[in-house]
Amino acid sequence: MIEITRRAYFSASHRLHSPQLPDDQNCELYGCCNALHGHNYWVDVTLRGEVDPRTGMVMNLDHLNALIQREIISQVDHRNLNDVPMLKGRITTAETLAVQFWNALAPHLAEGLLCEVRVYETPENSAAYRGE
Amino acid sequence: MIEITRRAYFSASHRLHSPQLPDDQNCELYGCCNALHGHNYWVDVTLRGEVDPRTGMVMNLDHLNALIQREIISQVDHRNLNDVPMLKGRITTAETLAVQFWNALAPHLAEGLLCEVRVYETPENSAAYRGE
Amino acid sequence: MIEITRRAYFSASHRLHSPQLPDDQNCELYGCCNALHGHNYWVDVTLRGEVDPRTGMVMNLDHLNALIQREIISQVDHRNLNDVPMLKGRITTAETLAVQFWNALAPHLAEGLLCEVRVYETPENSAAYRGE
Amino acid sequence: MIEITRRAYFSASHRLHSPQLPDDQNCELYGCCNALHGHNYWVDVTLRGEVDPRTGMVMNLDHLNALIQREIISQVDHRNLNDVPMLKGRITTAETLAVQFWNALAPHLAEGLLCEVRVYETPENSAAYRGE
Amino acid sequence: MIEITRRAYFSASHRLHSPQLPDDQNCELYGCCNALHGHNYWVDVTLRGEVDPRTGMVMNLDHLNALIQREIISQVDHRNLNDVPMLKGRITTAETLAVQFWNALAPHLAEGLLCEVRVYETPENSAAYRGE
Amino acid sequence: MIEITRRAYFSASHRLHSPQLPDDQNCELYGCCNALHGHNYWVDVTLRGEVDPRTGMVMNLDHLNALIQREIISQVDHRNLNDVPMLKGRITTAETLAVQFWNALAPHLAEGLLCEVRVYETPENSAAYRGE
Repeated sequence: MIEITRRAYFSASHRLHSPQLPDDQNCELYGCCNALHGHNYWVDVTLRGEVDPRTGMVMNLDHLNALIQREIISQVDHRNLNDVPMLKGRITTAETLAVQFWNALAPHLAEGLLCEVRVYETPENSAAYRGE
Repeated sequence: MIEITRRAYFSASHRLHSPQLPDDQNCELYGCCNALHGHNYWVDVTLRGEVDPRTGMVMNLDHLNALIQREIISQVDHRNLNDVPMLKGRITTAETLAVQFWNALAPHLAEGLLCEVRVYETPENSAAYRGE
Repeated sequence: MIEITRRAYFSASHRLHSPQLPDDQNCELYGCCNALHGHNYWVDVTLRGEVDPRTGMVMNLDHLNALIQREIISQVDHRNLNDVPMLKGRITTAETLAVQFWNALAPHLAEGLLCEVRVYETPENSAAYRGE
Repeated sequence: MIEITRRAYFSASHRLHSPQLPDDQNCELYGCCNALHGHNYWVDVTLRGEVDPRTGMVMNLDHLNALIQREIISQVDHRNLNDVPMLKGRITTAETLAVQFWNALAPHLAEGLLCEVRVYETPENSAAYRGE
Repeated sequence: MIEITRRAYFSASHRLHSPQLPDDQNCELYGCCNALHGHNYWVDVTLRGEVDPRTGMVMNLDHLNALIQREIISQVDHRNLNDVPMLKGRITTAETLAVQFWNALAPHLAEGLLCEVRVYETPENSAAYRGE
Repeated sequence: MIEITRRAYFSASHRLHSPQLPDDQNCELYGCCNALHGHNYWVDVTLRGEVDPRTGMVMNLDHLNALIQREIISQVDHRNLNDVPMLKGRITTAETLAVQFWNALAPHLAEGLLCEVRVYETPENSAAYRGE
């Protein structure tokens, strides 16, 4: 069993805001992240599977990259995340992005192949989801 | 003569849009950057001067950092750059940011000390202004 | 279940020296690390838990950062690690730092939330502790 | 139980080519990677074990580094990977490198100590093997 | 006057070999770089000019990037540099690459706009050419 | 004319302290840097010269690296900078290091070849000297 990881990048704006809470509680809860701002995000997508002896690969990384570009990057790059369909009505934390990006990729990959989706907002902040 | 450089970081959203142009020309000119998005920016501020033999420093880097935080970072971090007073009505390219950040710092530094302000939008894109 | 990771930085000096060993064995065991030197360290603190649907977060990253600053960074930044109370009498390897930083954080976090503390001395050397 | 990780670097050329497939299928399968090109690779070797209370270390990192240099780096640095004995006749994907580097290191380490070998071709592409 | 810099990446193999020298002198002169190996290169292209007040830009970075991709990256990415037309018969040092990349870009840019081409072989080795 | 840059690394401890000032003024002037701490430093040494058409190089980077290792890194790596002969009695700021490293290298290089020595204490703090 081998893990392979492919990284992809996007630049987006967002604000953290819960529609279930009044403005002053949003302000207290999210601090400066309640205001509109943005990040150079990156996403590490990890697959876990056996190496095909005919190709030496778990999966063709060009195919994996094309999938990530089509299902994730083309949806969120140079956008305001709060307006993106797959995130609409959700709080656009790194946690939420990791889960929604997993949900966007999983149906296009063989059962059990997707292992982890990790989203970095900055070098200091990241969230990872493993489908558990 | 020694150059010292201090780096500072901020996260902000922006869109590139010229009020002098119709929407379709804005769209053509700025491409995907005409839509609201964001970056983890960083700024390298370089001073050039003689070393004070009493301190071994061109300028105390803590003081320089405090100045950068007060005059730049506190104005733009976790903001939408198009709404920030020092950038209001301007096109928020990296070029514009470098010039306006220079203008914000220069009055607080000894004549001739400020040497360069370089602004990175991403590791791939930057602009530098040297007051010329 | 989601993992969130927060990174923090500090600069410190240290030397590797075992009080239980004679000088020549210390010198042989730790090589050049037996002499006083220093590093720009960084620490990745990972929590593992469920996302609060009200906030979209496992834990408020500002609160986690404040905890890391108070319990770790304020104790070790710009210090000689061999003189720091939480490391006194211990051999200041990355392994020891990871364990002691875990011990400093765990009492302030909900049972089972702390997942990993990873300490980097350099980009080439790191140690991670998962409480096992 | 602590994990320690040591990183090492090498620069090498390679091409992805399966001797079991005709040229046109190689070209389709590996795309531009079917042509001779190269990378600045890096390898993260992780050990997992108990800390020796006498030394504060899982293993002396200088000794681990010497082992990695001798068994891996000296074999592959500034070489064409397709000609390197430990990779001869294999498809030189990151997956293959991770497995073969594991096989080169494991006989020289205490049973159960080697935990993971991760090989990066670029910041975007990596593969990890954990001996499973 | 503003400087803008755009970074681009490519992966390539090469060997340093002077056709004017016998094998043993090549071996002594270039050491391990006389053997076929490879790198993840990156190139920083800097322009220097005035900001167009209508656009806020020295030059549209998308256009600059398209030029770099067409004139440089498409020629050298996933290739053996010793076989690339623009480098044929030359010694493929970073110095040579910086000059040849300058020569490839300059005819497509307004007189005096191109300011510097810097080529990195590794984070440790780079060469820069300013047309002087 | 081409500039080539070689990067080298060292880990060292230091404290900023002026022997000409009383303790309380040292404390106020240097803040937390008045206490013993440390860094992973790196040094960028830039030469500027013509390319030798026989070798394609300004200077053999292996030779330059050997010089940097011998004259700088072997003196300061895994040391306390305040005790290092070339820095003894000086205030160990990045400014001082840049000048003293220049002075250590210049006598071993052809007249006019050494162009810049840049010393990084952290990614945020650096100083550069150009012999002016």
